[in-house]
Amino acid sequence: MTVINVGIAGLGTVAQGLLELIRRNSALMQRRSGVTLRVVRVASRREKPEVDLMGARFSTNLEDLLNDADVDLILELIGGEGVALDLIRKALAKGTPVVTANKAVLAAHGNELLSGSGRQMLRFEASVAGAIPIIQSISGGLAANRLHSLFGIINGTCNYIFGKMEAEGTPFDEVLAQAQALGYAEADPSFDIDGIDAAHKLTILLALGFTGKFELSALHIEGIRHVTLADIQFAKELGYKIKHLGIIQNTDSGVEARVHPALVPTTALLANVNDVMNAVQINSDGAGETLFSGPGAGGEATASAVLSDALALAQQLTAGNTLTSVDAGSDDSQADSIDILPMAKVVSANYLRIPTVDKPGVFAQVTQALSEFSISIDAAIQHEAAGCQQPVDIVLMTNEVPEQTMNAALAKLQELDLVASDIVRLRVAPGA
Amino acid sequence: MTVINVGIAGLGTVAQGLLELIRRNSALMQRRSGVTLRVVRVASRREKPEVDLMGARFSTNLEDLLNDADVDLILELIGGEGVALDLIRKALAKGTPVVTANKAVLAAHGNELLSGSGRQMLRFEASVAGAIPIIQSISGGLAANRLHSLFGIINGTCNYIFGKMEAEGTPFDEVLAQAQALGYAEADPSFDIDGIDAAHKLTILLALGFTGKFELSALHIEGIRHVTLADIQFAKELGYKIKHLGIIQNTDSGVEARVHPALVPTTALLANVNDVMNAVQINSDGAGETLFSGPGAGGEATASAVLSDALALAQQLTAGNTLTSVDAGSDDSQADSIDILPMAKVVSANYLRIPTVDKPGVFAQVTQALSEFSISIDAAIQHEAAGCQQPVDIVLMTNEVPEQTMNAALAKLQELDLVASDIVRLRVAPGA
Repeated sequence: MTVINVGIAGLGTVAQGLLELIRRNSALMQRRSGVTLRVVRVASRREKPEVDLMGARFSTNLEDLLNDADVDLILELIGGEGVALDLIRKALAKGTPVVTANKAVLAAHGNELLSGSGRQMLRFEASVAGAIPIIQSISGGLAANRLHSLFGIINGTCNYIFGKMEAEGTPFDEVLAQAQALGYAEADPSFDIDGIDAAHKLTILLALGFTGKFELSALHIEGIRHVTLADIQFAKELGYKIKHLGIIQNTDSGVEARVHPALVPTTALLANVNDVMNAVQINSDGAGETLFSGPGAGGEATASAVLSDALALAQQLTAGNTLTSVDAGSDDSQADSIDILPMAKVVSANYLRIPTVDKPGVFAQVTQALSEFSISIDAAIQHEAAGCQQPVDIVLMTNEVPEQTMNAALAKLQELDLVASDIVRLRVAPGA
Repeated sequence: MTVINVGIAGLGTVAQGLLELIRRNSALMQRRSGVTLRVVRVASRREKPEVDLMGARFSTNLEDLLNDADVDLILELIGGEGVALDLIRKALAKGTPVVTANKAVLAAHGNELLSGSGRQMLRFEASVAGAIPIIQSISGGLAANRLHSLFGIINGTCNYIFGKMEAEGTPFDEVLAQAQALGYAEADPSFDIDGIDAAHKLTILLALGFTGKFELSALHIEGIRHVTLADIQFAKELGYKIKHLGIIQNTDSGVEARVHPALVPTTALLANVNDVMNAVQINSDGAGETLFSGPGAGGEATASAVLSDALALAQQLTAGNTLTSVDAGSDDSQADSIDILPMAKVVSANYLRIPTVDKPGVFAQVTQALSEFSISIDAAIQHEAAGCQQPVDIVLMTNEVPEQTMNAALAKLQELDLVASDIVRLRVAPGA
């Protein structure tokens, strides 16, 4: 039985979940992998909390992890781009393999960190979709496939908020406040509900499965603040659920990479991924449509993914094996079509909710304005106005339209006198 | 770039899909894995069909694969327990790693084949759930977790049949005939619709994730022939879909392992896995509820899984690495509770459809008979009879009852004069 000595950076929820999993399942992991993970050192900038470190040395100096000759493997569970980035750089430079759960650092510095030896020495299963082994599934399970597209529910907070709005008919602001009270959303929720967290994760999936490059700045990013209860109810009436999706599509003209709310048919598996669960659906040439779902966050769920990486590295470190890499950091993982398509060129069907003044001929004027842009209507809803002179929503589903055409048409529509307030436009998920 | 020379046994749908994937995606696989798979020999007992073997030598003698010193790795794509078993045994004996898609041989001979060096040298991702990387997910992605339960839609034919019955209101026999015409079911459909295929796959999942032992004979196996259109419609009315499931549950008294039709709540993700798709849901202590879905059969889908194993082995074979094992063949992968619980002791809620003569007091007599076994009713449906003296179905949902109690009650009920024909009993999926 080979023992691999582990150093842990950080002592928050994930690190505590990890210590608990090792405490509980250590014998099980040994039997499965043939290696024993022994935590020999924990470093956290905070003073040591009341956590059983199982005999590991503790200090508040992260450098101690690098200077401890006993440490074979470092688990970076701090997060963010500051000291975590510094620690990963230094560990890789001195040849110590690192497992990280840090999506922000990968999205921003993945190209650097996964170049050279980092490709073999840095693993990051926990950085995307928590407990779901999506990195392994792409780089291992689907390694023989060209990926056509990827659709991800990769922010649990957004999924929770949409789910509650739909199930309980509660408006966005109220659900957000509830989510904050339950710990599903941060006091400053921007990172989640403005799509930044999902964009970090999609950047990693994009590099890993499609382009080989980390290109956060090339992504189109929208959050969920503009989606109202009315939109969720109209979408349902049309046979759709609204999900906050990360979308990658390999098209003839380039790779689409975008994060935004999207309409998904109610009967699709992805539409039935509820609460704070995450899911990633991948369409590839050999394996067809595969979907992976599970908890996207939480101490033990994230720790499960960190340990999976740690065990894989530990198995390779024993017997002097050469470390094998996961597929990122290559600059041509699919060789052709690695350009990210500008959002203006992306083609989508659209859901439009147009608040209008309740006057004769309004519906005709709206559809006439759209037809000037060669946009046609696949479905429409208009309910009777609540009362005389009340604004009334016209809801339309368009055919597939290039983004720049849709944007021009929306700008024109918004200026019409009959439009009472801001138009809501949501895209339909491709293939839906 | 290291080249690993591959020999293929068999030249059916999966082998042809595999050759096609290599032809199409060879460069992609090289970039991702750092190794090149080169097919140097193909052996099939049939004369060589019109398939491009990309320069590989061909013969009708399987022994040639063993005797060819160029072959580093054998892909066994014949199936069945005869010559395939012989080939795997001989290859492992002479130290040649093997990848197999053969569930039957593993279910029956897994303990032998995965003992000793077979644990490192034999891989079998494609044997369960086709394209879904479920073996890797259990042995790798979830390696740090104790598995509580597993629910699998692991026979696409059964899932297709139930789906069509529900969607189109077509009776079982007609849908089966359609499935045979489409190639989704064999001319002799018994292997699929009597649950044998699913039992083979569940045996592998049971060994891998729970007991470390292949114990096909310990499984309770039921097929789908007794499920009628009426049952699918009543189940829907009660808020359930009927799925043919493989179920494993780790309980205090032992591990349940069973294959049978089961009621799953309509809103559950598993209930929304449609057509010929497969899915495996795993509940574990750290990762929580994870679900993996995808095509369970088909040439390229199965080949995708075979190639995933082949690439992993090839990576390990290069640089003289020691092969690491997947977790099966150990005789105590979870150490405690490795006894399979006898079916008589399994506890389930039940769906009962009792065809009765339409007379006053029948409902009371039925529920009275059940109450004598301390079985209570959680829900009930009785529609008006189609006509005078026509039999009428009483549909009941029971509380959770031990199997032996339910069986005794059913025997008693079936004898009552008021029961017009065979009672249909279906179990509700645990946790539903």
